[in-house]
Amino acid sequence: MPRADLLETFENPYRDREYEIHMICDEFTSLCPLGGIETDAAELALLKGGAPDFGIIRITYVPAAKCLELKSLKLYLWSFRNDGIFYERAVNRILDDLVAACQPARLEVVGDFNVRGGIKSVITARHAART
Amino acid sequence: MPRADLLETFENPYRDREYEIHMICDEFTSLCPLGGIETDAAELALLKGGAPDFGIIRITYVPAAKCLELKSLKLYLWSFRNDGIFYERAVNRILDDLVAACQPARLEVVGDFNVRGGIKSVITARHAART
Amino acid sequence: MPRADLLETFENPYRDREYEIHMICDEFTSLCPLGGIETDAAELALLKGGAPDFGIIRITYVPAAKCLELKSLKLYLWSFRNDGIFYERAVNRILDDLVAACQPARLEVVGDFNVRGGIKSVITARHAART
Amino acid sequence: MPRADLLETFENPYRDREYEIHMICDEFTSLCPLGGIETDAAELALLKGGAPDFGIIRITYVPAAKCLELKSLKLYLWSFRNDGIFYERAVNRILDDLVAACQPARLEVVGDFNVRGGIKSVITARHAART
Amino acid sequence: MPRADLLETFENPYRDREYEIHMICDEFTSLCPLGGIETDAAELALLKGGAPDFGIIRITYVPAAKCLELKSLKLYLWSFRNDGIFYERAVNRILDDLVAACQPARLEVVGDFNVRGGIKSVITARHAART
Amino acid sequence: MPRADLLETFENPYRDREYEIHMICDEFTSLCPLGGIETDAAELALLKGGAPDFGIIRITYVPAAKCLELKSLKLYLWSFRNDGIFYERAVNRILDDLVAACQPARLEVVGDFNVRGGIKSVITARHAART
Amino acid sequence: MPRADLLETFENPYRDREYEIHMICDEFTSLCPLGGIETDAAELALLKGGAPDFGIIRITYVPAAKCLELKSLKLYLWSFRNDGIFYERAVNRILDDLVAACQPARLEVVGDFNVRGGIKSVITARHAART
Amino acid sequence: MPRADLLETFENPYRDREYEIHMICDEFTSLCPLGGIETDAAELALLKGGAPDFGIIRITYVPAAKCLELKSLKLYLWSFRNDGIFYERAVNRILDDLVAACQPARLEVVGDFNVRGGIKSVITARHAART
Amino acid sequence: MPRADLLETFENPYRDREYEIHMICDEFTSLCPLGGIETDAAELALLKGGAPDFGIIRITYVPAAKCLELKSLKLYLWSFRNDGIFYERAVNRILDDLVAACQPARLEVVGDFNVRGGIKSVITARHAART
Amino acid sequence: MPRADLLETFENPYRDREYEIHMICDEFTSLCPLGGIETDAAELALLKGGAPDFGIIRITYVPAAKCLELKSLKLYLWSFRNDGIFYERAVNRILDDLVAACQPARLEVVGDFNVRGGIKSVITARHAART
Repeated sequence: MPRADLLETFENPYRDREYEIHMICDEFTSLCPLGGIETDAAELALLKGGAPDFGIIRITYVPAAKCLELKSLKLYLWSFRNDGIFYERAVNRILDDLVAACQPARLEVVGDFNVRGGIKSVITARHAART
Repeated sequence: MPRADLLETFENPYRDREYEIHMICDEFTSLCPLGGIETDAAELALLKGGAPDFGIIRITYVPAAKCLELKSLKLYLWSFRNDGIFYERAVNRILDDLVAACQPARLEVVGDFNVRGGIKSVITARHAART
Repeated sequence: MPRADLLETFENPYRDREYEIHMICDEFTSLCPLGGIETDAAELALLKGGAPDFGIIRITYVPAAKCLELKSLKLYLWSFRNDGIFYERAVNRILDDLVAACQPARLEVVGDFNVRGGIKSVITARHAART
Repeated sequence: MPRADLLETFENPYRDREYEIHMICDEFTSLCPLGGIETDAAELALLKGGAPDFGIIRITYVPAAKCLELKSLKLYLWSFRNDGIFYERAVNRILDDLVAACQPARLEVVGDFNVRGGIKSVITARHAART
Repeated sequence: MPRADLLETFENPYRDREYEIHMICDEFTSLCPLGGIETDAAELALLKGGAPDFGIIRITYVPAAKCLELKSLKLYLWSFRNDGIFYERAVNRILDDLVAACQPARLEVVGDFNVRGGIKSVITARHAART
Repeated sequence: MPRADLLETFENPYRDREYEIHMICDEFTSLCPLGGIETDAAELALLKGGAPDFGIIRITYVPAAKCLELKSLKLYLWSFRNDGIFYERAVNRILDDLVAACQPARLEVVGDFNVRGGIKSVITARHAART
Repeated sequence: MPRADLLETFENPYRDREYEIHMICDEFTSLCPLGGIETDAAELALLKGGAPDFGIIRITYVPAAKCLELKSLKLYLWSFRNDGIFYERAVNRILDDLVAACQPARLEVVGDFNVRGGIKSVITARHAART
Repeated sequence: MPRADLLETFENPYRDREYEIHMICDEFTSLCPLGGIETDAAELALLKGGAPDFGIIRITYVPAAKCLELKSLKLYLWSFRNDGIFYERAVNRILDDLVAACQPARLEVVGDFNVRGGIKSVITARHAART
Repeated sequence: MPRADLLETFENPYRDREYEIHMICDEFTSLCPLGGIETDAAELALLKGGAPDFGIIRITYVPAAKCLELKSLKLYLWSFRNDGIFYERAVNRILDDLVAACQPARLEVVGDFNVRGGIKSVITARHAART
Repeated sequence: MPRADLLETFENPYRDREYEIHMICDEFTSLCPLGGIETDAAELALLKGGAPDFGIIRITYVPAAKCLELKSLKLYLWSFRNDGIFYERAVNRILDDLVAACQPARLEVVGDFNVRGGIKSVITARHAART
């Protein structure tokens, strides 16, 4: 299960200026609960949890009081490795977890997933603090 | 004939947040009813239905209550394979079928077709729910 | 001489929805009346009409009642092959001819011409129907 | 079924000089007999013949007495559209058919097929006339 | 543990002609036994087996009596997902397993692994049947 | 008709050293005698000579006593503009004309022609002086 | 010294329509008065005027009554070749000279200069006619 | 320690026109105070100050009274080479130092840093003069 | 000073098969003893050791008894960071140090250095064990 | 006139090992004596020496006793700036001058010149010491 408890933050060193942090992780992988568009039942039994999905996660945020600690973000993204999760849920889940961790002014998560069944999927979700 | 009945949907798991789903299918193919810009009558007789067209279909939508199921979308796009249809109709038809299937907040279809007679065609159509 | 009479149209099959058609012709060629930036008089005598120009023509339009027929557009663009015409005139002439042929809601023509004398030229002209 | 009878040839106009002809077809498509690595039985029933495969066919040959006629080659490659055939067989079959049609000095066929199940396949087969 | 028992083969349909099969898997992932160049002990404890490695596996072979079945190859490569294995061992292990499965005339495995500690590694191993 | 008489040469200024000259013309155009793979009879009547072909001509040679004058080569290649000629003939004809003009140690002509009917053609012919 | 007197214009043939002309010169070169970031005094003595700078000049304008004549623009840009001039001055000077020559509705000059001392510089200046 | 005292300026030669200067330095390097995401304590002891970071610094500004002197900017960026500084601080620090040096109308700094632990970071900060 | 003592090795796990290991480090940096082609004396005084050089180091080797340990290689390459060394010496020095450390069958080092004074340098040196 | 006297050398620090040095200068410019393929007499009068040519010079050599000093090579290549010289002569002249200066084991010069009259030219000349 994705481990939001792994996420750590540090004090934003430049609170009086709005600035933007963009992070790209090319090595995101999780499992597809149903084996996905390209996997049959026999394969699923073998894999105990689903067929592997691969993608790129792009995160862009404007920090408020806290910044996301880079190493903890890496570990958090690794924690999806053996979980079965659909694309839409993965992207929205990451958005929820990061927003909860650092309470940013704005935050966007893009999940850019590899071709499956000849179709590529890119999911984009955004959060903005109420002002 | 394009089989809109193949399209399936699932409940949008994050209804309270507007987010965007973008899907790219590089392997769209259909037939051109008149043989198209590059085919003569003798060839048409041979092909029984028209000269092959190839293209990329890009779909972008903001789901409302329902999301498009990826595997069913693949089958739906495959169902154009042996139908004769013009570019303008194909793109608008896909738009109509997808909107009918999932009633999205917004949906755009781009058909980016291969060069024929030295000319490349890209058709873009959009739907927005009335609010 | 460019042959606007070659242009044909067909009924727009989706009149109640505004959509966009983009066409790219990589194989446009005409002649430069004065031989252009790179040709002297002796060459011009040889060529009977001017030095060859090459370019890409990009057309984007929103159809109203009529769509441009693709094969006739190919023949129309071929008809510039042995005519002497300056870049500015070619682009504006194509715009005028296409607007006259299909009376679109909007239409843009971009002429992206090959380097001559170390300089590349790109001309863009637009038409919008009065509403 | 692939229609080798569609292939036509013409007399090589430069027989006294060995030269090379390379042709690339980006729009090859056929069906996979078993539905392939990404399709289950329900989908197969729908498709009546197998899941679509897409690829690029590259042909390189040194003509002897005859050259392959380009338009007939196009029609021959189109004739695979609704046949179920494995990659290895498709490439070797094309090689056999082209060699039989034009008896070249040398001929190579490369089939460069789209990703299926996260794996891309490229098959290369060659023929050389005995001397 | 990598599951060589998953590998299946089929009869080479064109035994009398030497031809080449090239397969590219962009989605290889395994674990690094020691956590690798970028991971400390605390992270390793979390991951139970090592830090994730990612890479591309390229396989090129000339079949003899048997060809590798594509879907079984996919499952075999998936079976490295949660095993700790060094780059050199992974590439040589894949080479050994594929050679044992299909007894090819020649076979090459290239493992092209993602940057770690600012350094990218590419390992290449080859097998040729004794003749 | 291609005008080989336009070709001019100048004395090779470095005869005692073998060196190589490579020239690329991106703007070659001619007509296809039969209208080609994409044109029907009605279009041919209009064009008086055939459908336009476009391509890149690459010439590589090792000069002996004479070098090809660049400006005359440009005019020579322009002289194909309104002639109907097949790809194989165009490439071999250019080879013959250039060899006759400058008697080189070696000379290669590559004609890399635009896609017609979904197929791209590249023709390569070579000449070497007898020694 | 830059020779604005070389610039010539011609009557805008389509005055009643606003359209845009974009020109790119990849071969701009001038000298840096002080030898620039990478040259010492001994080198400067040798060069009599400064170290060479290289860049791309991009000009975009909407003509009013007059268009810039392409060949004269080429000669004007050549006239910077042996003049010492800083980047900021070169771009603003070209802007001033072109505006004076053709009194355009709008005009933009971008100078995109090669890396010096590990730093690349791009300068952008714009003019708009008062209305 | 970053040496803001190295920054020099010169009088803006075109004060009456707002124009933009964009500078790209591909060779920025500093040290990570804690050794960063990929370095352990033993390595840090060796490096006396932290693991090396690499990145691209992009600066865009609209000058007011003064322009940044290019050579002094190079030396200023070099002065980060052996300092330990986090990404967020480096970008905001450069912004503060450049603004203090030249009091621009607007200034933006983008720090585009190399992948660490499989994650790339891009930080963007902006300053605008109060008006 | 480059610290060859940092290099560590491990036993080659597949000694009976010749295979190749290729490693690419994009983040090599050292200092130029004389300040290099782009730096004057005043700058050198500031930098205490020379102007920074940047490059890519590519290492390819066939291991004999020992393989190079990746993390120790990273530290070894880092140890050039504050040393003054010319390109030719750096590449040959790395070759000597790696050969001494692991006694390979063959080893090649390529140093691909960034542009200085408008000139890029790439140095290649090779070692082969005597047999 | 090209100033071969500017070329300086230094002792090859690794004489007992054959290694290769490759240098690329993207900023070569000279003048064409006759104004070249794109310039008429009036322009020549203006330019006092010919129309500007631009190109890339690539030098690859295996040093014997001496290496070419990089800064002096830069100045030597700059010295072609205002000389009229044909492509073939420029490349062979550089080859002669560099060989005379450093007496290498082998040396190759490639001159890759910008498009003139729609044709790009690449000249390659080589020297090998007699052994």
